[in-house]
Amino acid sequence: MILTDSPDELRAFLEQARRVGRSVGLHPTMGSLHGGHRTIIRRAAAETDVVVVSIFVNPLQFGPGEDFDAYPRDLERDRAQAEEAGADVVFAPSTAAMFPEEPQVTVRVNRLADVLEGAHRPGHFDGVATIVTKLLALAGPCHAYFGEKDYQQLVVVRHLVDDLSLPAVVVGCPTVREPDGLALSSRNAYLSATERSAATVLYHSLLAGKRAVEERGVSDVAEVRAAMTVVAQREELFDLDYAEVVDPGTLSVPPKVGAEVRLLIAGRTGKARLIDNLAANRQED
Amino acid sequence: MILTDSPDELRAFLEQARRVGRSVGLHPTMGSLHGGHRTIIRRAAAETDVVVVSIFVNPLQFGPGEDFDAYPRDLERDRAQAEEAGADVVFAPSTAAMFPEEPQVTVRVNRLADVLEGAHRPGHFDGVATIVTKLLALAGPCHAYFGEKDYQQLVVVRHLVDDLSLPAVVVGCPTVREPDGLALSSRNAYLSATERSAATVLYHSLLAGKRAVEERGVSDVAEVRAAMTVVAQREELFDLDYAEVVDPGTLSVPPKVGAEVRLLIAGRTGKARLIDNLAANRQED
Repeated sequence: MILTDSPDELRAFLEQARRVGRSVGLHPTMGSLHGGHRTIIRRAAAETDVVVVSIFVNPLQFGPGEDFDAYPRDLERDRAQAEEAGADVVFAPSTAAMFPEEPQVTVRVNRLADVLEGAHRPGHFDGVATIVTKLLALAGPCHAYFGEKDYQQLVVVRHLVDDLSLPAVVVGCPTVREPDGLALSSRNAYLSATERSAATVLYHSLLAGKRAVEERGVSDVAEVRAAMTVVAQREELFDLDYAEVVDPGTLSVPPKVGAEVRLLIAGRTGKARLIDNLAANRQED
Repeated sequence: MILTDSPDELRAFLEQARRVGRSVGLHPTMGSLHGGHRTIIRRAAAETDVVVVSIFVNPLQFGPGEDFDAYPRDLERDRAQAEEAGADVVFAPSTAAMFPEEPQVTVRVNRLADVLEGAHRPGHFDGVATIVTKLLALAGPCHAYFGEKDYQQLVVVRHLVDDLSLPAVVVGCPTVREPDGLALSSRNAYLSATERSAATVLYHSLLAGKRAVEERGVSDVAEVRAAMTVVAQREELFDLDYAEVVDPGTLSVPPKVGAEVRLLIAGRTGKARLIDNLAANRQED
């Protein structure tokens, strides 16, 4: 496996690979790899010839007072995990390698960037869109793998690729969960044992919303939201930011629960801000 | 020569060309080709194997009340001119082909987008940056040719390519002028005979600034600016927006005239908003 911190080297290597007919799979990460990442890397390895895992804790997507400095970093551990899961290249550039000069360019997905997570983390999705555009420009034509765990990010990236005609096929990968339902996340490392146990509330809240839609056939958005919220508020160690019902493609709140919706939840447990989401499919009347 | 309106066809054609080792040159235009464009196309044809001229009157870079609807369009004439100058592909997509859905993404070069032309045309350079990012993403690895006539645009594009690691080498091409000094521009078509004659004032104003720097060794920025302004204001048919002295790389106004500056001028003659610029090199003391 190749480990490189050089954007130019990455580009040259992948151009050469494509020239001899090999397909490229890219999984952009901020490191701190866990089972969710490994599942994605294994899928990329099954579907493409050359799998690149990028590891870059992107300063552009952290707001003031967020956990940029505290974000866990362990390149040697990440490298080993990526290799074991089937990566061919780990691209782990420094901030100086990515931005030799103070970056001036911002890529923004309007509207989508300001709702839900965007409302709670101003500028976050501008940072995501900017770095993903750069990584996709560096990688060139590829399949780009993103986890559904960061659902809004996935929708932002799909819009980005369409609107800018970036040469990537975006592949969304299902969330991987602990046996008790907690979605795998690098930020789970911030949780104490009690908080870890409380954090399952996100999944239980989503399940309550899913049951409302799928089993009770609730079509009223506020009622589904309430079903999620009541569960979320029962957990004292969880501080709910939002529980929402949205159209899976546009992330706007529909007037009625349609055939397919996405349930999203976010909040804080101890120092960790956690998010999760689930699809819900309503039987049409 | 190939004429296509399909982004997918363009991408596939250029990928195939590169696969067999041919280099690609791209000259993005809004059509209404003139001698300035033809000079650029001939240069691209001398330096690269496959020359693409894109023709797209980009709605994103026109403000409300600007000349988007009036902007001259004549595809058959443009096609013939591009072919005669050595283009291999004319890519002339419809707005619907470029943006099948209402575009959500904006690419912004901060600071640079708000000064000079940006101050007079809010949103203009966001529109330029967005469409250039998309065209470069579609074209893939290439040499991208831009005229120095739109000097601020050229600087914006250089920052764009650097910050987003777009796979392009940006080539700036000298301005082509009429014998009396007027820079070739599609918007010259808006000028009456009297206005056409008055429009040479932009070049004469720039020459006055250049003489101040190069012959009189003026180091005071305000004095160079005044040398340009006094000439510009002498022409009654010209309504000056700005005459400025800037650093050629950053476009910021330097405290003193350095070894190399760029002189920029913009204003209105009749219905036409015209811009021009010139390099000036100061002998160091």
